[in-house]
Amino acid sequence: MSDIKKVVLAYSGGLDTSVILKWLQDTYQCEVVTFTADIGQGEEVEPARQKAIALGIKPENIFIDDLREEFVRDFVFPMFRANTIYEGEYLLGTSIARPLIAKRQIEIARQVGADAVSHGATGKGNDQVRFELGYYALQPNIHVIAPWREWDLLSREKLLAYAETHGIDISKRKSGASPYSMDANLLHISYEGLALENPAAEPEEDMWLWSNSPESAPDAAEYVELEYSKGDIVAINGVAMSPAQVLTKLNQLGGKHGIGRLDIVENRYVGMKSRGCYETPGGTIMLKAHRAIESITLDREVAHLKDELMPKYAKLIYTGYWWSPERHMLQTMIDESQQTVNGWVRVKLYKGNVIVVGRESKTDSLFDPNIATFDEDGGAYNHADAAGFIRLNALRMRIAANARLKRG
Amino acid sequence: MSDIKKVVLAYSGGLDTSVILKWLQDTYQCEVVTFTADIGQGEEVEPARQKAIALGIKPENIFIDDLREEFVRDFVFPMFRANTIYEGEYLLGTSIARPLIAKRQIEIARQVGADAVSHGATGKGNDQVRFELGYYALQPNIHVIAPWREWDLLSREKLLAYAETHGIDISKRKSGASPYSMDANLLHISYEGLALENPAAEPEEDMWLWSNSPESAPDAAEYVELEYSKGDIVAINGVAMSPAQVLTKLNQLGGKHGIGRLDIVENRYVGMKSRGCYETPGGTIMLKAHRAIESITLDREVAHLKDELMPKYAKLIYTGYWWSPERHMLQTMIDESQQTVNGWVRVKLYKGNVIVVGRESKTDSLFDPNIATFDEDGGAYNHADAAGFIRLNALRMRIAANARLKRG
Amino acid sequence: MSDIKKVVLAYSGGLDTSVILKWLQDTYQCEVVTFTADIGQGEEVEPARQKAIALGIKPENIFIDDLREEFVRDFVFPMFRANTIYEGEYLLGTSIARPLIAKRQIEIARQVGADAVSHGATGKGNDQVRFELGYYALQPNIHVIAPWREWDLLSREKLLAYAETHGIDISKRKSGASPYSMDANLLHISYEGLALENPAAEPEEDMWLWSNSPESAPDAAEYVELEYSKGDIVAINGVAMSPAQVLTKLNQLGGKHGIGRLDIVENRYVGMKSRGCYETPGGTIMLKAHRAIESITLDREVAHLKDELMPKYAKLIYTGYWWSPERHMLQTMIDESQQTVNGWVRVKLYKGNVIVVGRESKTDSLFDPNIATFDEDGGAYNHADAAGFIRLNALRMRIAANARLKRG
Amino acid sequence: MSDIKKVVLAYSGGLDTSVILKWLQDTYQCEVVTFTADIGQGEEVEPARQKAIALGIKPENIFIDDLREEFVRDFVFPMFRANTIYEGEYLLGTSIARPLIAKRQIEIARQVGADAVSHGATGKGNDQVRFELGYYALQPNIHVIAPWREWDLLSREKLLAYAETHGIDISKRKSGASPYSMDANLLHISYEGLALENPAAEPEEDMWLWSNSPESAPDAAEYVELEYSKGDIVAINGVAMSPAQVLTKLNQLGGKHGIGRLDIVENRYVGMKSRGCYETPGGTIMLKAHRAIESITLDREVAHLKDELMPKYAKLIYTGYWWSPERHMLQTMIDESQQTVNGWVRVKLYKGNVIVVGRESKTDSLFDPNIATFDEDGGAYNHADAAGFIRLNALRMRIAANARLKRG
Repeated sequence: MSDIKKVVLAYSGGLDTSVILKWLQDTYQCEVVTFTADIGQGEEVEPARQKAIALGIKPENIFIDDLREEFVRDFVFPMFRANTIYEGEYLLGTSIARPLIAKRQIEIARQVGADAVSHGATGKGNDQVRFELGYYALQPNIHVIAPWREWDLLSREKLLAYAETHGIDISKRKSGASPYSMDANLLHISYEGLALENPAAEPEEDMWLWSNSPESAPDAAEYVELEYSKGDIVAINGVAMSPAQVLTKLNQLGGKHGIGRLDIVENRYVGMKSRGCYETPGGTIMLKAHRAIESITLDREVAHLKDELMPKYAKLIYTGYWWSPERHMLQTMIDESQQTVNGWVRVKLYKGNVIVVGRESKTDSLFDPNIATFDEDGGAYNHADAAGFIRLNALRMRIAANARLKRG
Repeated sequence: MSDIKKVVLAYSGGLDTSVILKWLQDTYQCEVVTFTADIGQGEEVEPARQKAIALGIKPENIFIDDLREEFVRDFVFPMFRANTIYEGEYLLGTSIARPLIAKRQIEIARQVGADAVSHGATGKGNDQVRFELGYYALQPNIHVIAPWREWDLLSREKLLAYAETHGIDISKRKSGASPYSMDANLLHISYEGLALENPAAEPEEDMWLWSNSPESAPDAAEYVELEYSKGDIVAINGVAMSPAQVLTKLNQLGGKHGIGRLDIVENRYVGMKSRGCYETPGGTIMLKAHRAIESITLDREVAHLKDELMPKYAKLIYTGYWWSPERHMLQTMIDESQQTVNGWVRVKLYKGNVIVVGRESKTDSLFDPNIATFDEDGGAYNHADAAGFIRLNALRMRIAANARLKRG
Repeated sequence: MSDIKKVVLAYSGGLDTSVILKWLQDTYQCEVVTFTADIGQGEEVEPARQKAIALGIKPENIFIDDLREEFVRDFVFPMFRANTIYEGEYLLGTSIARPLIAKRQIEIARQVGADAVSHGATGKGNDQVRFELGYYALQPNIHVIAPWREWDLLSREKLLAYAETHGIDISKRKSGASPYSMDANLLHISYEGLALENPAAEPEEDMWLWSNSPESAPDAAEYVELEYSKGDIVAINGVAMSPAQVLTKLNQLGGKHGIGRLDIVENRYVGMKSRGCYETPGGTIMLKAHRAIESITLDREVAHLKDELMPKYAKLIYTGYWWSPERHMLQTMIDESQQTVNGWVRVKLYKGNVIVVGRESKTDSLFDPNIATFDEDGGAYNHADAAGFIRLNALRMRIAANARLKRG
Repeated sequence: MSDIKKVVLAYSGGLDTSVILKWLQDTYQCEVVTFTADIGQGEEVEPARQKAIALGIKPENIFIDDLREEFVRDFVFPMFRANTIYEGEYLLGTSIARPLIAKRQIEIARQVGADAVSHGATGKGNDQVRFELGYYALQPNIHVIAPWREWDLLSREKLLAYAETHGIDISKRKSGASPYSMDANLLHISYEGLALENPAAEPEEDMWLWSNSPESAPDAAEYVELEYSKGDIVAINGVAMSPAQVLTKLNQLGGKHGIGRLDIVENRYVGMKSRGCYETPGGTIMLKAHRAIESITLDREVAHLKDELMPKYAKLIYTGYWWSPERHMLQTMIDESQQTVNGWVRVKLYKGNVIVVGRESKTDSLFDPNIATFDEDGGAYNHADAAGFIRLNALRMRIAANARLKRG
């Protein structure tokens, strides 16, 4: 019925991807290989093995990986070196995880000799684009199967009916489960759908799963010291940590102090506006602190060039072009700028606030108190220089104004 | 001794500009015209009249203006239409006031037939540039006198000695006065110098003058509804207000709730890094809310174009180019984009947090719930379109990957 | 068989669109309205009427318009105000005509109550995108029929067979006709396909239809004076002309002198590289001359801002976003910059060269010979100012270098 | 009289720098070290030794270097990788040589223990900035002496009088010497001043020194094949060449065929407009050919990103920021993009024209004739994909248009 022989499915073990698994078997009559990754979503991944087996997947066709360190080291940290924010607000928590999933799926496809890959993203969202641009960039002739664009199970009812008919266990849809459309990884958790589809209405408090509200956060502030090496955090409060450990720790601290909630309307790549809510506790701290360490270690024009290019870089990640040559090109430049971004930043966390209260670089500071001082500086700076500086910067405007005056 | 006949001095009535006034009279043997403006700095301006008279200024040479409405309407609001932030943090409170002062000084110079203007900004800072680029752009052949670059009163002691010698009243330097170098207007108050010259150290709590700390702010959140017309706030909680009223009200609300404190190291135009602390309570609310109203009323690519140009626009204002043709050119484009930015935004203020909890535009919303919905959309969106969209966006990367594969 | 009732077809009268006309009638069983425009392609448009009638189109359903003035005034000239070039070479001759065709088709569709529009662009090219983005932007729910993406007549043989079968006159495919895939309008003529599909090979001389080769152009140079008003040419050699007259005259002059041939590989929006050859005689003169008049009338930073945004503006036009809000936003800014672009430029045309030999603006020149002179300038410029200018511009680099030295 | 002990002077051996040499000795009572470089200006540099000795310079204080290879390899070639043009026209021939001179002067200053450097650039031009930003960036506390900003010899007459008084040989000011202010190196020769100060007037033919006029160039075209490796030309017509050999050869070819003359009004960094004429024969060929090899080897978005950043990069070089961290940062990105820019380009040179007639890359071509073809492509490209591509790209504009329609 199809010429697909083997497909690698990004499989969470949940209802949707279990239905997809079955549907792939039925529709394409092909062998299915499941891939389940721990990227810090906060759920056990090992149970996916039994579910896959229950659905007839051969043990050797089940791949379960812990990608948390790779995720933070090779995706999250490089992105934060650019102070990346999409549309002034969004920290790209979902966007940055997709390229890693795509890469690993393609690696597995090569290893097992699969000719297709499949994912559970819908036809209206950004994630389908992020997955598939990754697939195509890394394996140009791979066959991509996007069930949500192909099948007719477009409502929750139809999906459940299909599951029941095909013997998929739906008992785990416990009554207490969140009804929102969600995505989670070590960088963030997101919520879409339902009441959120009205952007005029405030989300209900019990939607938020990861963080205290600012109101319920501790009444006492907490100070945290972050140590940077080449733009990345390498230690917290003096304790050296791996990338995933850093983000885990900052999530715990940020979540405790009500930090990193976000409620926005964003512009999707596929053309519509969409309302999303996000919790990014650790990322919110990282963004603020990274700007602070850069503020004393980056040259002014380097910092401004980064700022001017950031929206473009953020858009590339949001729209799924992580594996594109232009993202790579920008990353080369960004990484080069981070060679001197070394030192520490102290932040104060308090009820939703991340307050920078100190920053220092023993090795790379460009802050020169002798020049900046309001006191006499012993000749480090010649005040008279400013007159010429201003006059030549003004010259083009003076010539223009004189020309206007002459014309009357 | 000089060929300067009449000079218009930006005169605050404080010690520094009083010394300058005297020094100008002595050094240039010229007539001094004083100009004092109320731009919302929070001090009475009328007392400057008696001080000027005491220093020998003729009544007709004393100009005192209330510029608060012009300041917010023609400077602050246009800047906020661009979501302007310098170096990711600074809301440009000082930068945006200088062009207005410069403009008014030049108007007065024309009116009284003065051949020079003077200001009290130092030779190390940005403000001298902002004042003087304005002077030159508006009156190209004006003579500019910058006493801090010319005289030898470069320490506080020398300044006080000069004041005493010349009979300038220094009694108002009351013991309780802030020792920091400060600037204030309706948009913000700033602090520099002293202990702040060590960027590793946290500022002391009693430095901050305008706002509650988040800790001391009310325990109860407050909701505020802002109404927008063409990108500007025109009403708060249903009450129509003038621009200056809007900002005054938001300052009061923000200050109460501990909003808008900032502690940064910034890059000055004259070449050094400098540590500054700022309170911008109303502005901080405005920035967050403006992005929210734009999120439902601006086209995606228009929003992205604005985001890409914002750092350049911010830099122009920071470095003093408000009166330049390129700022005007950018403003034309920014203002054009705001025609559809109409509607309301609801924010929740709580202990330093500005949380957007709702936004709506009856007239200009581009948020289409029928298309965005996770439910069935009755054909408003064709899921299959996404396949072609992705495949053509991926084509260049597939061709490149195939070329790489072929080369092996 | 379909619910399309009436379709407006962009109809050239040639074989391809005649086949499309017939195919639309057959496939959709709908009424076809033809629209044929004179945009300076150099062929009579009136014969299209008889052809349409012969294919059964009712006289009231035949629209033939002379759009040459509108084309140059509202599309070509605005684009040239930006010094627009795509990928460093291409003057966008085809791209700029499509939005006008789309706009007029939609106007006619409204007038005749049509529910669909159709065009003859293929599924691999940029033109389908340019047409359809225009349709959708101007009439969001219009039905678009792109026969080349729907039918199976994908080779020339099948097309001819269909024509013969359906009684379409193919006799006009005279033996002497150019075999290349071509497009022409008042701005340019383009060639694609056949031998050009090998980018290593030089095109044959007799492909080029509009211009002399540089070799066969006159041995005597010709001087031409162009007069500008707000960035547009309004007179040539002292004779006032309309926009279309200007371009017609410059095409004649440029073609005579071997100007404006181009042979490039370009990147299409749909993802592949494509080799194209172009003749743009008048446009090549306009681009060079416009930069010259701007060189004396535009402020430096305005000019640089235009240069930085030009690639983005060019890409918008190339990819079909003329009717987008972001193109409109950029145009607002570009047009604002042209208020002072008034004066004249003299160019010398000779065997492929456009050489600017003089430029002047009596009203708006910013060239000040008193300041620029190498002779003594009577104090117009203070050489000492440069020292301070340089020292402050160098300060950040000096601080960094000192920091490096200190670290050793 | 001064605390300068030893100064390294950029010494050409000509009248101006000879006067400077003498003036430095007299004014600063210091030891002068001369540095004379061959950067391809087309004059012998060795005669500068005798002149220096005649002016009392110790032999060990005379440095004469052949920097041609370093100039092209480390400055010209990297710049051309970016397709650099300033203000749409200028190939930066003077700008790109100054950083090398500055670097070598600082190296010599370190070697001989000099505490100052000096140059012969005037106070109105860009070159003083380019030299001095280089000095300060490389040796932050160096003392810079710019005689043209300090002395009063501001006319030619005063300069000659000074020379005669101080026994400097002025006999070499031969009657036939060009009266223009000129600069030359392997990349270009420039002309400023005199009749050129009127931008309305055409330069006289005998001003141009390096190239045939198009009129006097050969009547027969010449084909040249250029081979690229990582964006740089490594062979011409099959003959491997060093960077300086490449540029020398292309200058000879371009000059013969009347290529590379330019007559513009440009915007100087110090604030005024200035008219300059340039001959850049080899560079003009290189720019055109480099775009051609990139057209088949660079990804579309990489090429567009380069195009968008090019004006900024060009401005950095024009204004003297070669040694800045932001130029380095951009260069890192540009160089990264050139890894695949390998292959050959064939150009035809004829009377001022550089016509690309072929380009190919055996190893890195992204031009895929199977996809680009107008013929049937055997399924390499799915035409139907374009429909979805267009519809989703149009979606935001359709939503906006529908919103407008709904509002009426």
